Amino acid sequence: MTYQEKLARFRQEMANRKLDALILFHTDPHQSEYLSKEWHIMPWLTGFTGSTGTVVITQNEAGVWTDSRYFIQGEKELAESGFDLMKLRIPHTPEYVEWLIEQLPKGGVIGVDGRLISINRMEAYSKKFKEKGIELLDCGGFLQTHGGAEEVEHVFDHSTVFTGKTREEKLQEIRGKMKELGVQHHLLTTLDDIAWVLNLRGNDISYNPVFVSYALISLNLVYLFVDEKKIPLDLRNQLSDDSIHVLPYGEIKSYLSQLPEGESLFIDAGRVNWDLFKAIPEHVKVLRGKAFSTHLKGVKNEVEQRLIREVMRRDGVALVKFFRWLEEAADGEGISEYEAGLQLEVFRGMQLNYVGPSFNPIVGYRGNGAIVHYRAPELGSSQIVKEGLLLVDSGGQYLDGTTDITRTVAMGIPTPDEKRDFTLVLKGYIGLDQAIFPEGTKGYQLESMARMPLWKHMKNYGHGTGHGVGFFLNVHEGPQSLGQSASGGSAVPLEVGMLTSNEPGFYLENKYGIRTENLVLCVEKGESEGYGKFLGFEAVTLFPIDLKLVEKSLLNQEEVDWLNTYHQQVWDHLSPALDFDEQIWLRNQCRQI
Amino acid sequence: MTYQEKLARFRQEMANRKLDALILFHTDPHQSEYLSKEWHIMPWLTGFTGSTGTVVITQNEAGVWTDSRYFIQGEKELAESGFDLMKLRIPHTPEYVEWLIEQLPKGGVIGVDGRLISINRMEAYSKKFKEKGIELLDCGGFLQTHGGAEEVEHVFDHSTVFTGKTREEKLQEIRGKMKELGVQHHLLTTLDDIAWVLNLRGNDISYNPVFVSYALISLNLVYLFVDEKKIPLDLRNQLSDDSIHVLPYGEIKSYLSQLPEGESLFIDAGRVNWDLFKAIPEHVKVLRGKAFSTHLKGVKNEVEQRLIREVMRRDGVALVKFFRWLEEAADGEGISEYEAGLQLEVFRGMQLNYVGPSFNPIVGYRGNGAIVHYRAPELGSSQIVKEGLLLVDSGGQYLDGTTDITRTVAMGIPTPDEKRDFTLVLKGYIGLDQAIFPEGTKGYQLESMARMPLWKHMKNYGHGTGHGVGFFLNVHEGPQSLGQSASGGSAVPLEVGMLTSNEPGFYLENKYGIRTENLVLCVEKGESEGYGKFLGFEAVTLFPIDLKLVEKSLLNQEEVDWLNTYHQQVWDHLSPALDFDEQIWLRNQCRQI
Repeated sequence: MTYQEKLARFRQEMANRKLDALILFHTDPHQSEYLSKEWHIMPWLTGFTGSTGTVVITQNEAGVWTDSRYFIQGEKELAESGFDLMKLRIPHTPEYVEWLIEQLPKGGVIGVDGRLISINRMEAYSKKFKEKGIELLDCGGFLQTHGGAEEVEHVFDHSTVFTGKTREEKLQEIRGKMKELGVQHHLLTTLDDIAWVLNLRGNDISYNPVFVSYALISLNLVYLFVDEKKIPLDLRNQLSDDSIHVLPYGEIKSYLSQLPEGESLFIDAGRVNWDLFKAIPEHVKVLRGKAFSTHLKGVKNEVEQRLIREVMRRDGVALVKFFRWLEEAADGEGISEYEAGLQLEVFRGMQLNYVGPSFNPIVGYRGNGAIVHYRAPELGSSQIVKEGLLLVDSGGQYLDGTTDITRTVAMGIPTPDEKRDFTLVLKGYIGLDQAIFPEGTKGYQLESMARMPLWKHMKNYGHGTGHGVGFFLNVHEGPQSLGQSASGGSAVPLEVGMLTSNEPGFYLENKYGIRTENLVLCVEKGESEGYGKFLGFEAVTLFPIDLKLVEKSLLNQEEVDWLNTYHQQVWDHLSPALDFDEQIWLRNQCRQI
Repeated sequence: MTYQEKLARFRQEMANRKLDALILFHTDPHQSEYLSKEWHIMPWLTGFTGSTGTVVITQNEAGVWTDSRYFIQGEKELAESGFDLMKLRIPHTPEYVEWLIEQLPKGGVIGVDGRLISINRMEAYSKKFKEKGIELLDCGGFLQTHGGAEEVEHVFDHSTVFTGKTREEKLQEIRGKMKELGVQHHLLTTLDDIAWVLNLRGNDISYNPVFVSYALISLNLVYLFVDEKKIPLDLRNQLSDDSIHVLPYGEIKSYLSQLPEGESLFIDAGRVNWDLFKAIPEHVKVLRGKAFSTHLKGVKNEVEQRLIREVMRRDGVALVKFFRWLEEAADGEGISEYEAGLQLEVFRGMQLNYVGPSFNPIVGYRGNGAIVHYRAPELGSSQIVKEGLLLVDSGGQYLDGTTDITRTVAMGIPTPDEKRDFTLVLKGYIGLDQAIFPEGTKGYQLESMARMPLWKHMKNYGHGTGHGVGFFLNVHEGPQSLGQSASGGSAVPLEVGMLTSNEPGFYLENKYGIRTENLVLCVEKGESEGYGKFLGFEAVTLFPIDLKLVEKSLLNQEEVDWLNTYHQQVWDHLSPALDFDEQIWLRNQCRQI
């Protein structure tokens, strides 16, 4: 079936069900960002493979709303699909709501799959549409015939050697907060929260070591709703000893519907889906708020912090091996982006405790580097040779931490424009890295530090500057972020122990993409009388920044000092694990300027 | 009557009226910041003379909530008043609401004067209190026997030579927006908005050239509710020609109550008081939003921008005369802060188009400089001699603009600490002054540029960094501001033509206060393909920064360049209007470093 044929079938089915429009969110019942195969509806239906997008279909129009990271890719992928690329002016905003209001008549009906929309969103959109006389209807699953059955992947225990806290301790903390609120039950539906609280990991979703499940935490026990085949017997017994009882995944709604009268349930209405919410009986008192674990998991404990610093050495060593290899591989006819990505995986695979990539690596050569979430195709990806810029954004899942690093390197002799743009991005990186700020400061107060050098040259980039990063968990996690908006993660105060990326960039369509990304740990910088504690960032990622691309005349002395200090640290931490030839290579990369 | 006796009388009256608590806002029925005498209830009742504060009284407790600018002053003024100083952790937040909820039992009743609370605030607080079983009641005026009758001050026409737009043009713009919204009437209650729209000025309130009034703008005429004695006959005729009809101030409620059925009224519920709102009949459709004039008046037109640049020369010349005079006056036994303030007024008074001060000047010597809104007493203010730091924050109302400038000068040889702190503040000023940013950027995204140099030394200041400034109007005006919060003015996008202060500071209790303030005009810096327009600031205030206090080793080259360029501009603009001796003085002040 072509995309156009699929669209026609969807429209036919919409007509049968008397729906004037359909909204299809690219998520799963757990509001995941990365999805297991069965939820890959958007790419199946439209051909668009971006990581975020919303499909909206009416009888006359069909579009995919996505943000500027995907404008170039989206235009290509959606050509002749029957779907238009709809460019979001502001990322993550529901601009299609206004669009639908313009398109539909009074009395119009819009369908949405209740499993794929959070309670908050369902309520907010319903209200907006209702004001215009339009109904938003949970129409359930909709022709979702695209996916296959998942293989059964085992869930495994994540040792307290790595987590630093037992699941009992984590549950105790959460139950303490439940008691403060006076609630008997707490429903967790987000997969990273469940994995973190229970010190369990799985392999149901690419790149994220989570497993598809729900958890109902009560004051004395936990019900874990999961495909029972995924839980080995010894783990099941171990969980049972901790009063964690495994039940079939499909029984969550039935359990929710049987919650006794007079008891109360705490949910994160921004994450729990509408379909589950409908199953909760009216006699149960529902309290809403942020899931406690989102914050607890975002603030890394001492053990996690120590391990993150250590895992970065191994990740850095893998990258040294990769970029040295690449210099040779690019000789002559060169090497394809796709193969380079595979080889990077080989080098990471040699490292202790490595499990797999934390996301699909972005190996973007020249113009492909300007496609922010570029994915080199297996066949026909660009051949990397000894000229132009190459952007490599990659990361690993290790038992002892998750990494995410971007470096842009000059494969040949860079042009003055390339050097200028690279250096402006670097200045932005350093500005944010070197920020010191009082407790309580939020991401939106700091984020423009990373943009100002570009802004002063009337340049910019279309993505946020930083996202939270999990610990052997999702490479994107909350609660904090470093963005321009005063809502969402950027409005969360930064705290000691939070791990965030710092990744300004610059993209010139069809020419080159530049991004420099380290993970930075929020640390205490000191305390002063009358002003309280001051925090700052510690760059934990360890890999040199390509000095061939640094235009020193654009750096001030503080920035030069930062670069030299950082390179000394990279050398100090990585060199002991390298062989002689690698050391020579790294010594040059880390030379003082 | 002592403050304690007044408090006792208030409590007696509260008991008579069965009120468990009383909230008294320091404002007037127009939500003004500066108040005419009859509304000076807070200082009369408590002795606290700060510009912001909220008084809350219960039978057992009484307090004045204010922000960190007034902590030192408040402690002094409230000692033995019976009122406690209640320190706001976050400025302008209603922390007394939580406090009252803790203090009062279920069923408690809180009184508030409906004239002194906006609709939005009344609704929000009522809801919060109601959740806790507490009632918020409009109890009307309350023992307000403190003030005297105002003198009748004439209202006068503000010539279009200065305003750049006729009142007809302004009304046309507003009516255009009313028609877009489909409303027949628009109620204006804020005095600066009324003065701006009608190109009128008055003298009812110190420092702000406004007059007490309400305006009801309809599609064909305007009713101006004002004490008719204030309007000279020729002005009245002139207004009448423009279909602006003068009615007695007290008749506003009666007119509102007679609005015909089926018509609709647009109000700014954040500014219109609850008492007026109650007068609007239910059959009138009320639409809420920001008053159109708030934005229109915030964006200075070409004529206003040109005049602002010009008035700054005259203001700078007055300051040259003042600081030269001060150097001599401080010799020997010196001169008091109070007398220095008077003399500054004398020098401004010599300038063309000068009307009066735009606020009570702050002349704070040594430790007094650390009291952010210090007001030197007429008797017994500190004697300024040739040592230590002096902070002077002052401004003028001119027919062709409003000024506001702060300079901190070393009266003797400054200490290394003083130089370091001064230079950190200066670095912050320059960082924000030099910011360039895309259209749509908000104050909260930029404000930490001004704090970062201090933050890096674990220092800070407890006030916002910038406020909007009117044009021969209030020295504090919206819509924009430069603050840390993502609500209020700091969340308003900066636009070309907005005039804002940039005024970081540092305060060391009992030692010294440092603040450097210029007004900066938002200007277009250019446009680049794919990234749109970029904006920046132009410092329009013209007066040298004391080089004796600049520790050059703490400045980077860009900062040194900024300072030299600014001083060259100051020299170029001010020197032609100075006599020879003044030129010699200024030449030295503006020397290149």
